[in-house]
Amino acid sequence: MTPRDWLQKFGSALERGDINAAAGLFEPEGFWRDLVSFTWNLKTCEGRAEVKAMLAATLAEVKPRNFIPKSAEWFTFETALGRGIGHLRLRGKHAWTLLTTLQELKGFEERREEMRSSSNEPSPSQAPYVLIVGGGQGGIALAARLKRLGVPAVVVEKNERAGDSWRKRYASLCLHDPVWYDHMPYLPFPEHWPVFTPKDRMGDWLEMYVKVMQLDYRSGTECVRAIFSEEEKAWEVHLLKNGEPLTLRPKHLVLATGMSGFPYLPPVKGAASFQQAGGLLLHSSKFEGGAAWKGKHAVVVGSGTSAHDICQDLHTQGAAEVTMVQRAPSIVVRSESLMELAWGPLYSEQAVARGVSTPIADLTVASVPFKVLPELQRPIYAEIRKRDHELYAGLEKAGFQYTFGEDGSGIHALYLRRGAGYYIETGASQMIIDGRIKLKAGAIVEEAGEKSVKLSDGSELPADLLVFATGYGSMNQWARELISAEVADKVGKVWGLGSDTKADPGPWVGELRNMWKPTAQENLWFHGGNLMQSRHYSLYLALQLKARFEGLATPVYYVEPVHHLS
Amino acid sequence: MTPRDWLQKFGSALERGDINAAAGLFEPEGFWRDLVSFTWNLKTCEGRAEVKAMLAATLAEVKPRNFIPKSAEWFTFETALGRGIGHLRLRGKHAWTLLTTLQELKGFEERREEMRSSSNEPSPSQAPYVLIVGGGQGGIALAARLKRLGVPAVVVEKNERAGDSWRKRYASLCLHDPVWYDHMPYLPFPEHWPVFTPKDRMGDWLEMYVKVMQLDYRSGTECVRAIFSEEEKAWEVHLLKNGEPLTLRPKHLVLATGMSGFPYLPPVKGAASFQQAGGLLLHSSKFEGGAAWKGKHAVVVGSGTSAHDICQDLHTQGAAEVTMVQRAPSIVVRSESLMELAWGPLYSEQAVARGVSTPIADLTVASVPFKVLPELQRPIYAEIRKRDHELYAGLEKAGFQYTFGEDGSGIHALYLRRGAGYYIETGASQMIIDGRIKLKAGAIVEEAGEKSVKLSDGSELPADLLVFATGYGSMNQWARELISAEVADKVGKVWGLGSDTKADPGPWVGELRNMWKPTAQENLWFHGGNLMQSRHYSLYLALQLKARFEGLATPVYYVEPVHHLS
Repeated sequence: MTPRDWLQKFGSALERGDINAAAGLFEPEGFWRDLVSFTWNLKTCEGRAEVKAMLAATLAEVKPRNFIPKSAEWFTFETALGRGIGHLRLRGKHAWTLLTTLQELKGFEERREEMRSSSNEPSPSQAPYVLIVGGGQGGIALAARLKRLGVPAVVVEKNERAGDSWRKRYASLCLHDPVWYDHMPYLPFPEHWPVFTPKDRMGDWLEMYVKVMQLDYRSGTECVRAIFSEEEKAWEVHLLKNGEPLTLRPKHLVLATGMSGFPYLPPVKGAASFQQAGGLLLHSSKFEGGAAWKGKHAVVVGSGTSAHDICQDLHTQGAAEVTMVQRAPSIVVRSESLMELAWGPLYSEQAVARGVSTPIADLTVASVPFKVLPELQRPIYAEIRKRDHELYAGLEKAGFQYTFGEDGSGIHALYLRRGAGYYIETGASQMIIDGRIKLKAGAIVEEAGEKSVKLSDGSELPADLLVFATGYGSMNQWARELISAEVADKVGKVWGLGSDTKADPGPWVGELRNMWKPTAQENLWFHGGNLMQSRHYSLYLALQLKARFEGLATPVYYVEPVHHLS
Repeated sequence: MTPRDWLQKFGSALERGDINAAAGLFEPEGFWRDLVSFTWNLKTCEGRAEVKAMLAATLAEVKPRNFIPKSAEWFTFETALGRGIGHLRLRGKHAWTLLTTLQELKGFEERREEMRSSSNEPSPSQAPYVLIVGGGQGGIALAARLKRLGVPAVVVEKNERAGDSWRKRYASLCLHDPVWYDHMPYLPFPEHWPVFTPKDRMGDWLEMYVKVMQLDYRSGTECVRAIFSEEEKAWEVHLLKNGEPLTLRPKHLVLATGMSGFPYLPPVKGAASFQQAGGLLLHSSKFEGGAAWKGKHAVVVGSGTSAHDICQDLHTQGAAEVTMVQRAPSIVVRSESLMELAWGPLYSEQAVARGVSTPIADLTVASVPFKVLPELQRPIYAEIRKRDHELYAGLEKAGFQYTFGEDGSGIHALYLRRGAGYYIETGASQMIIDGRIKLKAGAIVEEAGEKSVKLSDGSELPADLLVFATGYGSMNQWARELISAEVADKVGKVWGLGSDTKADPGPWVGELRNMWKPTAQENLWFHGGNLMQSRHYSLYLALQLKARFEGLATPVYYVEPVHHLS
């Protein structure tokens, strides 16, 4: 069957309300992922029964039609309210995977030319429709989309300047994702932009972006407390603007506070005496760079990206000894291999030359059901393992505990499960192999003392500096902190798929929990992720908010029951 | 004859060195404008004899070939050193106009992807190859092009921040050219950008642009003196960086100091007593906005853009009386009419939708020989005059002296002749018609007194504020000020075509004098103009500098003799 035939049959089954026929066009275990176009939700239906259930609940209102093939895999379609783009993978007569996405609402399309007519300065509002807490790339991308859609939105950011959350990190920090993956909506990085954006450059870009896109962005503004009024169906949000109290009353509250918002620092025995003797003990988020530690001894706990970067920086800046204390295995992949094998087909100069635009790349990624992702990723990592066998042999010899994930599915899957636990090799692994960075693997810090650190393996290391690159707490903590424990528990765990791997307990849910979609708390939303996710999913979150702003009916199909509190 | 046939004949005549045959393909009075591809100059050959002379001098070295038609009017071609784009207007068998432009040098193409590989921070240099004096849109656009071409360049700007030359003007200042005309190279304004950019927005955009393009831009740095060493064939440039002396030794010096760099303030009898009585007398460039003049009396001398803008601002902000003193006729055109009839076909949302890219629009403008421009512009102004007859009737009734140029060719031609003398109506003309702005036409200020101004028509006006919107001196003054009177006189007049109209004395030279092309002073260049010119001509200036930087032979065909000193 050709995609054209399949779409024709599919469209006609939907138009005549024949749910069985429509579901029968899928493989028995086939997938239909919908982003907001049928479900007003982000939802993957797995298998014919779930497809049927979804259609039974939504078809009458959605009124899908006009399925038009655009190429072997891509098509466009319409619903009662909007226009969409879809992607189809056929195997024989049946769909293996189908993606349907809403791209715009009829009559409420993005404003472009008509926005030119005025100077269009943001007019500060006490009652924005949307308040976005957190002005990093996530909050900014969403605010830009809402601006284009004409939805009044305010971003509040506790730092003094947009971009400070990047600027305040250690000096050597760069993005480890390549530039083609990192564009913000509407304003791509210019052609000369470095492949791996240095953090201050990223900060400056975000600051520029806020200005150029004319967002209502309130820096130096901390969110203290948000209370939802059941009567008014609106939030009362208490802020401190440069220390002065300010209250805003938005209808919707978006937490874009970052996956790395709450540093996790384990309790350390002897911390006080370590510090009294002149040692510095801190979380990686507070580390400012290796320059101050020339000739000194440093111990870094952890083996993820920050731990590697910080060890590399300390060694490069001339620390006398740098030791990484590895608690658990991490995925390590050479940047070049990842670029070529994992990102290259979609996010690279070559992809751009082949005509793969950023939206097409993003939709292609979105078209892969999360359930299928590991089996598609495993061959990439098998190839990487072979190609970079010298790296892995070297790491093994140095005693480094590396992994490719519990099921061999690598970094991308791990990121979706727990957002941490990997390093993209850009130099530090080689330093571990060479012994320039010392390694203590499978150990934890037992106790800090005067200018030293005792490990669980009985060894003791001289130490002036003790860095805990031990990661971050979940985004739920922000809901708990800013709203209430009750609301945080009602909403439940944010992020993760239910893969039943470390830090991502089952049951399987098939979508990232609570991200960019309706939560169990009315008018509360979570937004964030890496630059690609912030870019792409901000579209669907913005469309959900726009539809509500315009008073369109947005019946939400299926809200995941809460299985875990954090 | 089809363009394809013509190009085939033309290319083959050039390849076999048959200059007569090549020249015979032009109308007897036909035009060939070359931008750097044949002449290493900006040169319009008018008539067959000039075409022959040019080819006789250049053909052997240029080795043009590979003329390939791309559409009815556009073609590409090659020379020994580079690749070019051309434009042809045929009439019957002969070319009426031909444009040839160099677009890139073989082996020295712009760097894009390879620049991504490093973080590529500018490394401050004491000996840049090019020093650009003046960091407005002109200097910035050129620096961006040189950056992409790998030519070390420094921009010095006396203001504290990039964009300050815009920020420091009166509050109501907006660009009067529409956004499609105003893009900087490489980074177009985003889609939501206002049609008429307000001046602070323009300032912020330039400041962002400098950062994002990573230019070596030294703000707070004033150029004091530049001396050319005949032995070293280089400049010694004395600067003050925040008051501290600094010397740079570039090979090339570019004056991008702006057409509006030297305010012209006529001597005023009684100025001292006017000011002693508490009046403020100043040039329009120092006017900060009408807010301070609520309830006061203001007199504004001049009837160009600044005079109109300032009168409008003063009236809008509540001045008790605002009088414009018109010395000489000005062109007035409604913005909407200009947008639709003059810019619309090339620079508009509709043009973009029709696929007219910014480079194509720029090249189309460049394809019109300056000699032909008036006859092409006159019908536009005839139409405008008809369409907006109410406006002109109103102005006439109010006593305003309007014109469409000495030969009826309008704003664009006037701008090329003298860079001043017109107003694009965005409200002030209506205020003159309504009497909200008072008018004294054909008069000059005889004398200022205590709180009053006496005019040459015998009238006396009460005045707290006296603004001279009397324009600017020529760019030559910068050469005189920064280098020497000798060099300024050697180079001669900058700008203007020799149209033998007011402020643009003959003889006819066919190109803008000394702009973007070799001057009589070795290694000295002038750059500037409006945003479109800064964008488009910076390409040809950058290619000329790049060729010299790489040591390519750049024999310059024809340097215009100096007819006027300023």
